[in-house]
Amino acid sequence: MTTLKEYAARVEARLEQLLPGGAVVNDAMRYSVMAGGKRLRPSMLLAAADMLGGAPEALDFACAVEMIHTYSLIHDDLPGMDDDTLRRGRPTNHVVYGVGQAILAGDGLLNTAFETMFAASLRDAARARPCLEAMAEIARGSGVKGMILGQCLDLDSERNGVPVEKREQMLEDIQQGKTACMFIYPLRAACRLCGASEAELEALSRYASAFGLLFQATDDLLDVLGDAAEVGKTLGKDEKSGKLTCISVYGVEKTRVRVASEHARAIAALDTFGPRAAFFRTLVDTMVDRTK
Amino acid sequence: MTTLKEYAARVEARLEQLLPGGAVVNDAMRYSVMAGGKRLRPSMLLAAADMLGGAPEALDFACAVEMIHTYSLIHDDLPGMDDDTLRRGRPTNHVVYGVGQAILAGDGLLNTAFETMFAASLRDAARARPCLEAMAEIARGSGVKGMILGQCLDLDSERNGVPVEKREQMLEDIQQGKTACMFIYPLRAACRLCGASEAELEALSRYASAFGLLFQATDDLLDVLGDAAEVGKTLGKDEKSGKLTCISVYGVEKTRVRVASEHARAIAALDTFGPRAAFFRTLVDTMVDRTK
Repeated sequence: MTTLKEYAARVEARLEQLLPGGAVVNDAMRYSVMAGGKRLRPSMLLAAADMLGGAPEALDFACAVEMIHTYSLIHDDLPGMDDDTLRRGRPTNHVVYGVGQAILAGDGLLNTAFETMFAASLRDAARARPCLEAMAEIARGSGVKGMILGQCLDLDSERNGVPVEKREQMLEDIQQGKTACMFIYPLRAACRLCGASEAELEALSRYASAFGLLFQATDDLLDVLGDAAEVGKTLGKDEKSGKLTCISVYGVEKTRVRVASEHARAIAALDTFGPRAAFFRTLVDTMVDRTK
Repeated sequence: MTTLKEYAARVEARLEQLLPGGAVVNDAMRYSVMAGGKRLRPSMLLAAADMLGGAPEALDFACAVEMIHTYSLIHDDLPGMDDDTLRRGRPTNHVVYGVGQAILAGDGLLNTAFETMFAASLRDAARARPCLEAMAEIARGSGVKGMILGQCLDLDSERNGVPVEKREQMLEDIQQGKTACMFIYPLRAACRLCGASEAELEALSRYASAFGLLFQATDDLLDVLGDAAEVGKTLGKDEKSGKLTCISVYGVEKTRVRVASEHARAIAALDTFGPRAAFFRTLVDTMVDRTK
């Protein structure tokens, strides 16, 4: 079985080729993309493609997904959004390159993600249709019905508050958009590239949805279970800003229950693939183990 | 002959359908897209498609081009970029919706542009290949080798200055990227959609390149030939910021010469199309007449 680390290394090497330096905007794009990170979303796309028989465009589509994820982080960190100065232990993009170039670096990554997929899609005329279907999935997941909607709702509730009776629904909508969509749609893209059946598409969508919610819940848990200094900082910031998280809405215990139920849902969704889905079983197990 | 106004009305009506309101980000997107404007770039794509035999996806691709153009204006107006508070006589996007939502509105428009083109491309399986080729042209023109590069260089030279011996070349690079690319690549997209010949593709690219440079030069001229109040404001701002324009680099007289030579180049490029290119001849004549 190919491991997450091995997939991540492939993504890393290809991103290096796809993003040459040059003008300030190119350097700024490279700065954030090559800053490490687990390469979780692109690796999952690659693993899904492997499981479903493979596709020659999978690696470039995976890199496009990582570019989109990274652009969203650059824009999220800007002063008009979360105003963060550190990410992965390094100064954020706008701290290094200035706000203007950071905006352009984000724009450039979203645009380059599509340019990369177009180039891959044009290599073989017979592959045009599945490539189009796959790109449409990725665009939908990262768009105003997916990731961008999640960010919009997140920003809006932080700025304007949310009535107490609407907090649970709002948290669901935010996490569905900001987090789950960026797991669901890349996996659906892998299905389209590989000509998977509708049943396989539905099963992987269910897995990715459960995985995304569980990923966010464990992240929120780790924020309060981490070292004491970290806890104080995170809680302080979230309380001040009124940010909706699993912890602020459900509390620690109910969040643990949620992790367990989403874990069960994710594992159940993999039934249809049998032993071929080993990568995805290991992945979701590892994710849950982080909080034990 | 279909006029610019008639093409613009078609674009306007289709944009209205493609961009429903909803969350804050949807409203912010609509605010800037539906703020009027000449719809020049999408109308030129439509006129080129008509001239070349037509394509069922032309209208949706044209709307995508207008979305991309509008996103670039929203981001350009942000405090970290040009910091403008007025556009087309109305408050800019971030003044109305806040910086964070304006960033997301720009992101949302770029993403929706691609979603719109994917939806149009998926309607007919036999059209996948020309649609892919056309999208690749649009993405290239708006990307880090096109429009975004122009914005990056513009911002960088304004912030850090340009040595006097490099000002001409820098102005060319900025105007090629920021302005000309957003005329060249939409017209190339129309060629791809319609299966135009290489000769037609090259001829329309030459026309669009000349048109773009002339468009920028006449805009720069109008800034100083407009009413006195306007002149003072514009010159004052440009001088303060050190912004490179045709006027600040070449002066008024040389800019007029440039307009005339690009006009001749644009008209000559249309020869191959004969009377079919009437729309494009009228358009470039009208543009030049603005400064007479």
